[in-house]
Amino acid sequence: MPKTMPVRALWFSGGRLHLIDQRKLPGRKQILHLSRVEQVAEAIRTLTVRGAPAIGVAAAYGMVLASQRGDGSPEAAARLLRSTRPTAFDLFVGIETVRTAWADGKDPLEAADAYRTRIVEECHQIGEAGAPLFRRRPRVLTHCNAGALATVEWGTSLAPLRVAWQQGAPIFVWVDETRPLLQGSRLTAWELQQEKIPYAVIVDNAAGYFMQSGEVDAVIVGADRIARNGDFANKIGTYEKAVLAKENGIPFYVAAPWSTFDQKRRSGASIPVEERNGAEVLRLGGKALAPTGSPARNPAFDVTPARFVTAYITPAGITAPGKVADLLRRRHASTPRHAGGR
Amino acid sequence: MPKTMPVRALWFSGGRLHLIDQRKLPGRKQILHLSRVEQVAEAIRTLTVRGAPAIGVAAAYGMVLASQRGDGSPEAAARLLRSTRPTAFDLFVGIETVRTAWADGKDPLEAADAYRTRIVEECHQIGEAGAPLFRRRPRVLTHCNAGALATVEWGTSLAPLRVAWQQGAPIFVWVDETRPLLQGSRLTAWELQQEKIPYAVIVDNAAGYFMQSGEVDAVIVGADRIARNGDFANKIGTYEKAVLAKENGIPFYVAAPWSTFDQKRRSGASIPVEERNGAEVLRLGGKALAPTGSPARNPAFDVTPARFVTAYITPAGITAPGKVADLLRRRHASTPRHAGGR
Repeated sequence: MPKTMPVRALWFSGGRLHLIDQRKLPGRKQILHLSRVEQVAEAIRTLTVRGAPAIGVAAAYGMVLASQRGDGSPEAAARLLRSTRPTAFDLFVGIETVRTAWADGKDPLEAADAYRTRIVEECHQIGEAGAPLFRRRPRVLTHCNAGALATVEWGTSLAPLRVAWQQGAPIFVWVDETRPLLQGSRLTAWELQQEKIPYAVIVDNAAGYFMQSGEVDAVIVGADRIARNGDFANKIGTYEKAVLAKENGIPFYVAAPWSTFDQKRRSGASIPVEERNGAEVLRLGGKALAPTGSPARNPAFDVTPARFVTAYITPAGITAPGKVADLLRRRHASTPRHAGGR
Repeated sequence: MPKTMPVRALWFSGGRLHLIDQRKLPGRKQILHLSRVEQVAEAIRTLTVRGAPAIGVAAAYGMVLASQRGDGSPEAAARLLRSTRPTAFDLFVGIETVRTAWADGKDPLEAADAYRTRIVEECHQIGEAGAPLFRRRPRVLTHCNAGALATVEWGTSLAPLRVAWQQGAPIFVWVDETRPLLQGSRLTAWELQQEKIPYAVIVDNAAGYFMQSGEVDAVIVGADRIARNGDFANKIGTYEKAVLAKENGIPFYVAAPWSTFDQKRRSGASIPVEERNGAEVLRLGGKALAPTGSPARNPAFDVTPARFVTAYITPAGITAPGKVADLLRRRHASTPRHAGGR
């Protein structure tokens, strides 16, 4: 078992789901205690808990909370949780894992715990597999937060950087602030600060500048959904960084556990992209950033074509994007997995 | 003479320079009245007035204010004003225009007024020259603010869009918010709203998404300094948009008056890029965006290589970036211009 990391996004105990309210970070570390599936759905919808693997685990425990109620049905609870956010595939995998167990008369809590443990282990495997890539490329740019907060523990994109850092590599992280909700400057910076890994926050606009000036050795991001052909959805702005990395000859890595791979999705073209309220763009902490009445558009994700990805870092190791379909086929043949997702 | 536009960034009357405090927009339209060159220098340094052509004109009037004082010297005033910001070439041209007149015993106010009038006329010429490009490409993305606020009247990047709109083209502007100081969402959106030109504010991260999805017909930006080979400096993030436009086969235009062209600069590699205080990245309206003690980097500009520019829109018309040197040589031969800039 991997060593527990200092940051843990959520845990289940005493019949309740406990999670860090990620909207309040870094100003305040407040723990919420949820006892009803509706609260979990709301926490996912409002980004109180976010990050594809973490919302998968939260939803799995949401199913457990529904099962603890006498009148709950697996289908109704699954429907509610599926309606929260459309893009991250992990959400549907987490829900489906517990729905199947519950419908089959098995213990939903046992299924959710096993799912959670698997995600944490896979993140640790990603860290071990990816760390060697960054020993000689230690100045790494990352977008959004794909750390422990996004995945329960370790992280996806941050796991290899954590492991490399623990192994003595001189890691330095360029933290894209990640507008509109600032998951980079609020959450990634907070995680790195906890572990004293050196970093600098930059506006999303400056990533290209530092790539161009030779100060970025590699880019690593997480993913919300990966199609069979290697296209993937991730936080809005990821596509921009991928194009810029390629233009500047900088390797671009995507780290993800198995729950992010959507084996039935042929390409990224059909991945549903959530568009959120324009108010997230127009206001920040109660302050108006634009004239009253301004229209805004607010897609929460974009889809990056496989040709911009140097390699995927999975629990099984480093994989070229063109080999994703093969990898999933072999994996599927050896360990049948639950279907899910829209 | 071009018709005066509803928005005017600054004007000189009664021996004082009057300017809109651009830090306060869009919440409040406050006019400052400056009577000393030191106040003008401070206004430029703090981005109270910003935009390359506008700070050139402000500095020209700063020289006038210095000349009104009995003990002022052209060299001392020029030195003070030159020290404010390093990147925009217009600043040095504006200062030098009035310094030369003053040192030659001519009327500094007359020189500054002529400089201002020329900038406004050139912006209007840019508008007329560029408008036809957008009649069939009406959905235009712009970065930062290169509107009237940045240029006294009309704007550079906004001038062709204004003229095309007045001619009946169905212009729609994608407004990059332009972190860290939000000149897009605060200033460009404000100008467009004044004239009822349709727009939507987006985070800088979303520009690539809308290019990729076929909703952007063209990109237009202003410039802070253009080298002889067609490389140019502009607000941080411009380089990112240029790379993304090329990747998506979208024309990328740069609009600028003559004062932005640095004829002595061979390429963009040596253009000085201002790095501003990290606090601009880490705080917004008193609110912390990152954990206390977070390091930040804050380059205010980036340099886009000429190969990403489809064409320059100058007062003389549309020019390929490879023809900039020729254009300047011909222009220099017919109308000798003041040297300036670092």
